[in-house]
Amino acid sequence: MNTSLKLFSYFRSSCAYRVRIALNIKNIPYDIIPIHLLKEGGEQYTLEYRQLNPSAQVPTLVDKGVPMGQSLAILEYIEEKYPSIPLLPSSPIDRALVRQMNEIINSGMQPLQNLSVTQYLYHQLTISDEQKTQWLTTWMHRGFESLENLFQKHSGLFCFGDHVTLADCCLIPQVFSAQRFGVDLSPFSKTMTIYKKATELSAFIQASPERQPDYQP
Amino acid sequence: MNTSLKLFSYFRSSCAYRVRIALNIKNIPYDIIPIHLLKEGGEQYTLEYRQLNPSAQVPTLVDKGVPMGQSLAILEYIEEKYPSIPLLPSSPIDRALVRQMNEIINSGMQPLQNLSVTQYLYHQLTISDEQKTQWLTTWMHRGFESLENLFQKHSGLFCFGDHVTLADCCLIPQVFSAQRFGVDLSPFSKTMTIYKKATELSAFIQASPERQPDYQP
Repeated sequence: MNTSLKLFSYFRSSCAYRVRIALNIKNIPYDIIPIHLLKEGGEQYTLEYRQLNPSAQVPTLVDKGVPMGQSLAILEYIEEKYPSIPLLPSSPIDRALVRQMNEIINSGMQPLQNLSVTQYLYHQLTISDEQKTQWLTTWMHRGFESLENLFQKHSGLFCFGDHVTLADCCLIPQVFSAQRFGVDLSPFSKTMTIYKKATELSAFIQASPERQPDYQP
Repeated sequence: MNTSLKLFSYFRSSCAYRVRIALNIKNIPYDIIPIHLLKEGGEQYTLEYRQLNPSAQVPTLVDKGVPMGQSLAILEYIEEKYPSIPLLPSSPIDRALVRQMNEIINSGMQPLQNLSVTQYLYHQLTISDEQKTQWLTTWMHRGFESLENLFQKHSGLFCFGDHVTLADCCLIPQVFSAQRFGVDLSPFSKTMTIYKKATELSAFIQASPERQPDYQP
């Protein structure tokens, strides 16, 4: 495809995965440009890429030459620019509750599993594999517990009611990461019910890591 | 005051500080209910507070009985509910750039200085004071470097152009935290120029930790 939207992505990045889901749900065509976060020390650190994204992270969305970073900022952009098939509810309070779920994942969980953070823990603080698992489990369990509490009040078929919202775009990649890191998710029944439902949808399937052009087993 | 908005806040929390600034700029009256994050193991962990905020964090904003958590979700709520004196620009791309700045702070910096995280590093991973300073400096410097890069392109008197935006509501508390943790900010000249300008404004002064009812030196 030769589209106006370019998404710099890494198949396994949960933050890039969020954006792929949202674009797919809204049926917006985009080109994927893979950035390998590990190859040759990480392609995200090249000067060329840092000019697009000074944080040296994926995703970056480029629309008509303007680069945007940070997945939550990109999700809000997509929602504003392409409002048909909305991914936020209409009332301000409901929107705030969806965004609260997003941020429990985006600021409460993902930053603590981020590659640069776990590399720091390994190399600078020389933690063991067991300590790394304990670290990841601690923050993920806290986050999923908070989410379950909100799901008890607000979920239906999906995180917030019976329609897919940005919260589902964040939740499903977070479950993927948790599973990859071997975190036990059996205590989080609402989360897993939503995960099962969402991952039956084509938009989620097509966005999944194993369907990406840069996928590696 | 007896207002419809109740803000559960801790004077030193940079996330609560963000919300106080935004409410002040928009001249929205609110009552502060202090939650002491350290007293008796942390008032945020009481059953009563967790019913308002399952993440056991400040801030929580309660509007007409509905509790909302996560400072960025609250900032977006305030912006949508009280649109006069806007804190986001009007075009989707400009809004995305402001939100990118917000998230560099909210997901890239603050989570790694969060009280529960530094307590974990101390107690579970038994790091030294020196290692803690190095940890904080690493993540803050990375974040401020990314922000400086964006400020070069987009800042004016404030983070994005010449008007206060949500990015300033996030930046000033982050500078406060960095200073409190002893992080050297001299390499970040745009940041410090914006900080100086913003902290001359009444909305920022009134929101500052030392002006809070629960302030302790």
